[in-house]
Amino acid sequence: MTPQPAERAGLTMADVARLADVSVMTVSNVVNDRAERVSAETRRRVQAVIASTGYRVNVPARQLRQGRTGSIVLAVPDFASAYFGELGARLAERLRPHGFRLVMELTRGTLDDELATLSSPHLDGHDAIILSMTAGTARDLADAQPRKPLVVIGERSVPPGFDHVAMDNIGGARLATDALLDAGARRIAVIGGQLDGPESMPVLRTQGYRDALASRSVPLDESLVVAGGVGLADGERAIRALIKAGVKFDAVFGLTDAAALGAMSALAAAGLRIPHDVKVVGWDNTELATYAIPPLSSVEPDNEAIADGIVRLLLRRLDDADAPAETTAPPARMVHRESTR
Amino acid sequence: MTPQPAERAGLTMADVARLADVSVMTVSNVVNDRAERVSAETRRRVQAVIASTGYRVNVPARQLRQGRTGSIVLAVPDFASAYFGELGARLAERLRPHGFRLVMELTRGTLDDELATLSSPHLDGHDAIILSMTAGTARDLADAQPRKPLVVIGERSVPPGFDHVAMDNIGGARLATDALLDAGARRIAVIGGQLDGPESMPVLRTQGYRDALASRSVPLDESLVVAGGVGLADGERAIRALIKAGVKFDAVFGLTDAAALGAMSALAAAGLRIPHDVKVVGWDNTELATYAIPPLSSVEPDNEAIADGIVRLLLRRLDDADAPAETTAPPARMVHRESTR
Repeated sequence: MTPQPAERAGLTMADVARLADVSVMTVSNVVNDRAERVSAETRRRVQAVIASTGYRVNVPARQLRQGRTGSIVLAVPDFASAYFGELGARLAERLRPHGFRLVMELTRGTLDDELATLSSPHLDGHDAIILSMTAGTARDLADAQPRKPLVVIGERSVPPGFDHVAMDNIGGARLATDALLDAGARRIAVIGGQLDGPESMPVLRTQGYRDALASRSVPLDESLVVAGGVGLADGERAIRALIKAGVKFDAVFGLTDAAALGAMSALAAAGLRIPHDVKVVGWDNTELATYAIPPLSSVEPDNEAIADGIVRLLLRRLDDADAPAETTAPPARMVHRESTR
Repeated sequence: MTPQPAERAGLTMADVARLADVSVMTVSNVVNDRAERVSAETRRRVQAVIASTGYRVNVPARQLRQGRTGSIVLAVPDFASAYFGELGARLAERLRPHGFRLVMELTRGTLDDELATLSSPHLDGHDAIILSMTAGTARDLADAQPRKPLVVIGERSVPPGFDHVAMDNIGGARLATDALLDAGARRIAVIGGQLDGPESMPVLRTQGYRDALASRSVPLDESLVVAGGVGLADGERAIRALIKAGVKFDAVFGLTDAAALGAMSALAAAGLRIPHDVKVVGWDNTELATYAIPPLSSVEPDNEAIADGIVRLLLRRLDDADAPAETTAPPARMVHRESTR
C-alpha cells in the first residue's frame, strides 16, 4: 500500500536507516550525495527504502542549518554551443567525486542575465558559481559583490579579489595565424574578428592575428576581418559575404570551431577545396573538429587544464573564503589536421 | 564605503524600495524574477540598489513560506550533445516569460543518476523536473513517485499518471529508410541500431527501419545493423568496422545526426563519395546537419513542437497537480539535403 503524505511526513532518518538495515550516518551520506563513502549496493538499498516510504529530507531547513546545497552553477551564454557543453561535461565529472552536482544555467550573453546570476537571490540555492562572463565588465563584477564563491571564466578583465581562469587568447591566435602562414597562406579571413573595442575574446584573438602578421611583415587587410557572431550560421554567412563582395582570400581563421565549420560549409558550397584552395583553422578543438570533412585544424586552449584550474580554484575558495585570488591562463597549443595541410 | 555584513543583514525589502524609489511590490517582483511585471530600467535600478547595499532575500526561509524556487531542471544524459543543448536552449526561451529559469543537470544515462534526480532531496530545490529517461523503466518511475511535477521525455514506456513527451521513433525511422530506398539504396547500414531488447530509442528506430524494408520487400541483413553508441566517435568507428569486415553497403542511417556525421567522416577518409557512393541520413535535424559537408538529410522530430509540448504539460501540471496525465508525440518529418541526392 502506498504510504499517505501524513505517514511520510512522520518518517525520520532513523526510520529509513532501520528499514534499510544501515546506520543513520549511511542514510545521511546517501541523501547528502556523499557517494564516495557508501557502496553502490548500499546506496541503492537506501534509495529503494526512500522511494518506497516517501521519506524526504527537508532541504530548506537543512540549508538553513548547514549552509550547503551541494550544487554548483555553471552560467554560460549558450546552451547549444559544443564548447560550453563539453566544458560542462568536464566540470561535472571533476566535481562529482567531491560531492557536488553541476547545473548549467543560461545568461544568453546579456549583461542583465550575467548580473542576475550574481546578485539574484537564486545564488543562495547553490554553493558557488562559475560564470562565463561575456557582457559584464570588471566594474560590474566589483559592483555586484557576489556573496558566494565565484570563479570567472572568459576573457574580460576581472578586478582584484576574484578568481579567474582565462584563455591564452593572444598566444593561441598567433599559433593559428602562424599555422596558416606556414602553410603558405597570405590573405587570411578572420571570422568573428574585431579590430577595436574593450577587451573581449574577439579583440584579443584579433590582436594575436595582427601580431603574427606583423612579425612576418604580412600586411593587414581590414576587409578580411569579418565582425559578427561565432556560430555555425555566422561562419557560413561571413564566407558567402566575402565571396559576394569579391574579396580574395586563401585561408580562414574561425574564432571558434563553429565559425570555422560554418565557413567550411560555405566554401564547399562555392566549390572551393579545403585545404587546396582555402586553408582553415578553428578554435576550441571540440570533438566536431576531429570529425569535420576534412578534419579541422584547431587551437586547443588546453580544455583539460582549464577544467582542472576552475575546479581547483573553486574548491580552494569553498574551503577558504579569504584565500588570495588567483588568475590562471593555461598556454594554448595548435592541433594540426588536414584543413591546413 | 562598502556596507559591512552586519548592516546588510539588517536591510529589509522596504529599505531597498525606499532607496530605489519604487514600491515594495516592485522590489519583490525583481527579486522573484517576475520580470514581465517590471520595466527593464526599473529592474536595473532595483538591482543596482541590491548590489550596492548588499541586500539579500533569505531564500531558504522564502522557500519554506512560498514553496516555489522559480527553477526547473532539465536532466539529460549528456551535456556535450548538440541535441540536448538545442533542447535546453528552446526550453529556457519558452520558460523565461513564465518567470522560470531552466537549469540543466547531468544523468550520464545511468539508472542511479536518473533515480537520484527523482528521489533525491535535491529536487526540493526546484519547482519541477523534465527528465530525459534513457536507463530507467516504467517500473522505476512508478516506484520513485517523485513529489514534484515531472514531465518525462524519451522513448521508454511511462506508467499511467505521468506526463510524457515522446518522439515518433518508428514513424521517423520509416521516413529515413524510405528516403534512402527512394534514392536507390538497397543495403542500408544502421548506426546505433538494435534488433531486440526492451523498448528504447535504438529498438524503436530499428523497428521503423525494418518496417520500411519489409514494406518494399527489401531483405534485412543483420550484419548491417551496428549496435553501440550514437555519438560522433561511434559513427566513425562503426563505418571503419564495416569497411574492415568487408560488409558492402550503399547507404547509412545514423540514429542521431552525431552518429551520421561521424559516419560521414569515416566515409570521406575511406575515399567514398557522399551521396554518389554512399547516401546518408541522420536524426535530430540539429544545426550541424545544415552545415555538414555535404549537408546532411535528417529526420526532424519536430523539435519546436516537442519543446512546446514539454512546456505546456509542465505549466499545466504546476497549475494543477491532479490534472489527468497526458502523452504527446508530434509526428516526425523528413528534411532532404544533399547527402541523399
